[in-house]
Amino acid sequence: MTRFDGRKESELRPVKITKDYLAYAEGSVLIEMGNTKVICTASIEDKVPPFLKGKGTGWITAEYGMLPRSTQTRKIRESSRGKVDGRTQEIQRLIGRALRSVVDLSALGERTIWIDCDVIQADGGTRTASITGAFIALVDGLHKLYENKQISSLPVKNYVSAVSVGVVDNNPILDLCYQEDSNAKVDMNVIMTDKKEFVEIQGTGEEAPFSRQELLRLLELAEKGNMELIQMQKDVLGEVGDLIGKSINEETGEKSDE
Amino acid sequence: MTRFDGRKESELRPVKITKDYLAYAEGSVLIEMGNTKVICTASIEDKVPPFLKGKGTGWITAEYGMLPRSTQTRKIRESSRGKVDGRTQEIQRLIGRALRSVVDLSALGERTIWIDCDVIQADGGTRTASITGAFIALVDGLHKLYENKQISSLPVKNYVSAVSVGVVDNNPILDLCYQEDSNAKVDMNVIMTDKKEFVEIQGTGEEAPFSRQELLRLLELAEKGNMELIQMQKDVLGEVGDLIGKSINEETGEKSDE
Amino acid sequence: MTRFDGRKESELRPVKITKDYLAYAEGSVLIEMGNTKVICTASIEDKVPPFLKGKGTGWITAEYGMLPRSTQTRKIRESSRGKVDGRTQEIQRLIGRALRSVVDLSALGERTIWIDCDVIQADGGTRTASITGAFIALVDGLHKLYENKQISSLPVKNYVSAVSVGVVDNNPILDLCYQEDSNAKVDMNVIMTDKKEFVEIQGTGEEAPFSRQELLRLLELAEKGNMELIQMQKDVLGEVGDLIGKSINEETGEKSDE
Amino acid sequence: MTRFDGRKESELRPVKITKDYLAYAEGSVLIEMGNTKVICTASIEDKVPPFLKGKGTGWITAEYGMLPRSTQTRKIRESSRGKVDGRTQEIQRLIGRALRSVVDLSALGERTIWIDCDVIQADGGTRTASITGAFIALVDGLHKLYENKQISSLPVKNYVSAVSVGVVDNNPILDLCYQEDSNAKVDMNVIMTDKKEFVEIQGTGEEAPFSRQELLRLLELAEKGNMELIQMQKDVLGEVGDLIGKSINEETGEKSDE
Amino acid sequence: MTRFDGRKESELRPVKITKDYLAYAEGSVLIEMGNTKVICTASIEDKVPPFLKGKGTGWITAEYGMLPRSTQTRKIRESSRGKVDGRTQEIQRLIGRALRSVVDLSALGERTIWIDCDVIQADGGTRTASITGAFIALVDGLHKLYENKQISSLPVKNYVSAVSVGVVDNNPILDLCYQEDSNAKVDMNVIMTDKKEFVEIQGTGEEAPFSRQELLRLLELAEKGNMELIQMQKDVLGEVGDLIGKSINEETGEKSDE
Amino acid sequence: MTRFDGRKESELRPVKITKDYLAYAEGSVLIEMGNTKVICTASIEDKVPPFLKGKGTGWITAEYGMLPRSTQTRKIRESSRGKVDGRTQEIQRLIGRALRSVVDLSALGERTIWIDCDVIQADGGTRTASITGAFIALVDGLHKLYENKQISSLPVKNYVSAVSVGVVDNNPILDLCYQEDSNAKVDMNVIMTDKKEFVEIQGTGEEAPFSRQELLRLLELAEKGNMELIQMQKDVLGEVGDLIGKSINEETGEKSDE
Repeated sequence: MTRFDGRKESELRPVKITKDYLAYAEGSVLIEMGNTKVICTASIEDKVPPFLKGKGTGWITAEYGMLPRSTQTRKIRESSRGKVDGRTQEIQRLIGRALRSVVDLSALGERTIWIDCDVIQADGGTRTASITGAFIALVDGLHKLYENKQISSLPVKNYVSAVSVGVVDNNPILDLCYQEDSNAKVDMNVIMTDKKEFVEIQGTGEEAPFSRQELLRLLELAEKGNMELIQMQKDVLGEVGDLIGKSINEETGEKSDE
Repeated sequence: MTRFDGRKESELRPVKITKDYLAYAEGSVLIEMGNTKVICTASIEDKVPPFLKGKGTGWITAEYGMLPRSTQTRKIRESSRGKVDGRTQEIQRLIGRALRSVVDLSALGERTIWIDCDVIQADGGTRTASITGAFIALVDGLHKLYENKQISSLPVKNYVSAVSVGVVDNNPILDLCYQEDSNAKVDMNVIMTDKKEFVEIQGTGEEAPFSRQELLRLLELAEKGNMELIQMQKDVLGEVGDLIGKSINEETGEKSDE
Repeated sequence: MTRFDGRKESELRPVKITKDYLAYAEGSVLIEMGNTKVICTASIEDKVPPFLKGKGTGWITAEYGMLPRSTQTRKIRESSRGKVDGRTQEIQRLIGRALRSVVDLSALGERTIWIDCDVIQADGGTRTASITGAFIALVDGLHKLYENKQISSLPVKNYVSAVSVGVVDNNPILDLCYQEDSNAKVDMNVIMTDKKEFVEIQGTGEEAPFSRQELLRLLELAEKGNMELIQMQKDVLGEVGDLIGKSINEETGEKSDE
Repeated sequence: MTRFDGRKESELRPVKITKDYLAYAEGSVLIEMGNTKVICTASIEDKVPPFLKGKGTGWITAEYGMLPRSTQTRKIRESSRGKVDGRTQEIQRLIGRALRSVVDLSALGERTIWIDCDVIQADGGTRTASITGAFIALVDGLHKLYENKQISSLPVKNYVSAVSVGVVDNNPILDLCYQEDSNAKVDMNVIMTDKKEFVEIQGTGEEAPFSRQELLRLLELAEKGNMELIQMQKDVLGEVGDLIGKSINEETGEKSDE
Repeated sequence: MTRFDGRKESELRPVKITKDYLAYAEGSVLIEMGNTKVICTASIEDKVPPFLKGKGTGWITAEYGMLPRSTQTRKIRESSRGKVDGRTQEIQRLIGRALRSVVDLSALGERTIWIDCDVIQADGGTRTASITGAFIALVDGLHKLYENKQISSLPVKNYVSAVSVGVVDNNPILDLCYQEDSNAKVDMNVIMTDKKEFVEIQGTGEEAPFSRQELLRLLELAEKGNMELIQMQKDVLGEVGDLIGKSINEETGEKSDE
Repeated sequence: MTRFDGRKESELRPVKITKDYLAYAEGSVLIEMGNTKVICTASIEDKVPPFLKGKGTGWITAEYGMLPRSTQTRKIRESSRGKVDGRTQEIQRLIGRALRSVVDLSALGERTIWIDCDVIQADGGTRTASITGAFIALVDGLHKLYENKQISSLPVKNYVSAVSVGVVDNNPILDLCYQEDSNAKVDMNVIMTDKKEFVEIQGTGEEAPFSRQELLRLLELAEKGNMELIQMQKDVLGEVGDLIGKSINEETGEKSDE
């Protein structure tokens, strides 16, 4: 099968990652997956939310937004509506969990890393692109702390990336663009580490339930896609990336990578 | 392994389903899974949301709430906070998707079914109990429409239920109570039909990523749990349940069960 | 005159009070008056609102809610509307005042008792049932503090209960159900102590003003109803109730019962 | 007993009513009771709220506000807080009910009368002064409709006024100023018609419950105060007032004064 | 040219300023410019906003509101809408900036002056009348601090007033009433000190752009109007006004008038 | 004088305008002025706000936002705060007025043009850059309507651009960057047409009032800056720009350019 944009079933869209995209953030990235474009930044704040105060551990929280005209028809600005809608909150929580899962928060100290993912242009897969891009902004931001000797090691245990898979016209495919997503019977987002382990799986068959066999094929595609994305993360991060997964906190041991 | 409450790894908590729990709703159920207690109701409204107006199709939407003192420590009332939090919205969207996936909305006509799931007491698994209980309230509400000859068949294609599974102390287990949930490395909610197909899988390894092998074991447990829950749904619904999956819309064919 | 449900003018609906209805709250009650069913809980928090900080006195505050389908037609969830409506606020304030009026807040210490009244099913008189039920939950919660020796006496001065009265078809009647309430020319809620004193009277003749004579007859009915309700409170509370009104704070004297 | 400001127990503060206080409203009044000053306006809108659409009947709704510095210490502006607090809502509902109780809404046609009561200076009794003043603004606004022949009679059945009474230092007194109100054991607002009938009674003994005997004395004082206030309303309204209570809707009869 | 109300192009409407209009505020003024009437109060609070805490300097902040029926047609109450609209916020910010520009905030100590401007009746020019009136309330409030020896001098550097100018039917005119304002091609608000210097200029030609020559004529008119208004401020403030501009903080020198 | 970044007093920062920056909007521009970067889009909607319904005329409305990390320190997302702050509203209103001033809304038909200005990076002058950039997006969007023959001419009367000027260290300068803006005694935004006429002037001397002479020098600088910006707009728009100011609505004449 060939897809409407000429891709093979297991082929990612062209990916472009521009590090240091903005001037002021501790970490910033423009990630493009086909026509989907997301600006991801990491901002460091020297305090933690109330529930962590005094516990000596840090926190990572994420916010997600779409420019009103990132989409085919203009979307009402959430600040005008006066509230963040359910979809946005789901995505924010997803990005936060994904990034926290690979960071040793106790080694971060009482700091919060604010991740902002703002979609400039949306053509499907904005939440997964956000995670993949935000990871790089996060590592870059943490690396600044490390260079400033505010932390003694880079508290990142694994690479993490995300990709969507789905079933369109009964074909399991990788990295759905908007047109494919709108016609998918099954839609799944898969977040994985460089160890090929799962951080999160969210699969929905609202249009039609799916079988175990379909599930397994989708996971295979997701693994292929994620491993390619993680390779690109490695290329972009270069030497900084080599610090990932190095034993971090030898004293506590608990969260160290081995 | 024996669990702290004496259950086996693959054992559900005691389940009790009380149909017709409230006097006014078209469908109402009290579902208890161990100490978790949820009131589920189905309310029928003779109009649809704006995006469906004039399309001749119906809609199912769900709302979820917790009594402030359903939990160990009192939770601030969402109406007092002036907004519905992210977790609640996620759960509401999940319940809605799950129920819509098994209903032929086009056969429902321009009606909205409002599903309300209110947690009276929370001991883990409230979202999955909500889905399992709400399905019965929904079927009961739709059956009233059918009896009143407002619809010509019961537009329900499949049974649907949900259960949680997770990895605690490296043991994959079924139907986590709150104490287990708090200590789980991996937490997964699995929604299935009586055909053993998946409607939704949401698995998170925030504490630690998980392997494909662990995933497969969890899905096995979930299938066992869901099939037991669906059997209880059948017992409670009795003859009404026999109408589920009967060919509904012979003309369009598209959404019919065969 | 016989009422449509067979009751006499001065007759309460069947009342059922289930203490310890929920597992986690310090005090919890399900109160049923006919088809009206309310869950009342008391939760203890070890701090007071800002305006009382450092004054050595406690506080009691109440919140009230209705399940969306407690009513004949579904009511929009206040959390979805993003605000608490005027009726709810009025009721919350009423319940709070009623309970504070019989408690020696200075003997409570710097603690807040949160009272939650959640209507499961509404057939008229939900606010008065809330007060009558919440009193028991409150006493039970305070008794836990007393048993744990966190307070040296039970700081409750009087029993308090509430009941509605009204004029329907020119007949003053006791304890209106929803159908009667909808047709009442005059509607009054009366809160009283076991000393037959008034804590609050709220009487409205929106449909038609009422005379002093009608007022006096309504107060008579209310006294009868409240004394019966207080007897039930005594039955449910048993020995714990015997501590009510016992001299509390001999030093200050001020708020003591004698 | 003489009160701290020299008044007798049954004496109102000096009352001053300025009709036509503002240029644009259909009816407007400045009412002063001692240091309490409230601007009351009536605005006519040619439509009704959704729940009355097409029913051929009108509506009266009231809003109440306080200037931030009407009080001894500055009160936060409700528009800044983003919500109307419980006390304000209670007062708004009370004013609306009081005025609706004396108007034949069916004779008003599909119109809404918006009553605005804005407190310029607050020294106790603002809600009762609002009702007494708003009644005049309302009659004046309705009279404009009548003069313009938009309605065929003045649809007002009775005069209505309101006054506070309370127990201070064990003395029942009339028309409490702020200092008295702060020290009152019992506080009661009584709304009456010129027929000496009650429209609403709201009495609270938060500090101490009150006996039937106290209640009766308070109602006596309230009657005296209200009859004096209604006499002033008559003086201010002059000939327009003579139209009040004249047979209005001879066809339906139901709401007419005779 | 003669204007529709008989004024000359460069003529202010009749101005009336009533000092000490309200009983409780530290400073209060009713300012009337023709039919425009605004109550301005100054309230003193012994703390500063978070961004100034510990800096030893004070703050002035302004809030602005309109009574719902200050206008020709009733305006929805901002507290009911749940938010302060853009126009109101613009005006609040403008008033605050204007007043801060003439006060030595460092000599004020850690205090906030709350300025409230509430429009009782609106006939154009409410924001400029607010500034002119609020200045007097502010000086009066500060003078109370000075008399109480809480500050060692009156920390006011200049008089400040504001007036509107505009182009109507190609004629530049001073102090537009509502009818003129609605027909103005150009609308400008000019805030000036007694030194004839500008504090703020806001000129808009939404209907038609304007030339430099028109601008200069408008500024001339504004200067004339403002100097007349400042003379009235001087008359009202009397001896207190003589303290304005006196060297304040000899030590720091920086913000002193010479 | 040379400025800290080497510019002369009357020198703009490097300006770069990228047309068609986004794929979906009817008009889109990335405008960069030094480090300030704003994405401006124009979206066309085939309806007008309620106050214009049925009047046959169109509307232009603008929204403005900043990415959380467009600034030196992260700014809280307005959607999270649940409201649009005063500064944002002021800017939105300013942009809308500026663009409406040069468009013949009656020739636009019953359409709304939504202008979105989203600041990607903020280094001073974001509101003026927004106007300059949004004008191009607007013209481009309108041109699409014209090409599709939905309107019979390009309803744009003039070019419009905006620039900031201010007084820093007693030197009047053009186009302030953030560092200069923070130290400015006087800050002014000037919006002009290609006819050298003013659309809006907003000048504030919060730190110190300013003289007429300073004002005139600032206006001179603003004219120079705006004429340079308009030249760039012409270069970017090319032939489309030639349609600007062409006689539009010969029948009414009123809004036509000659």
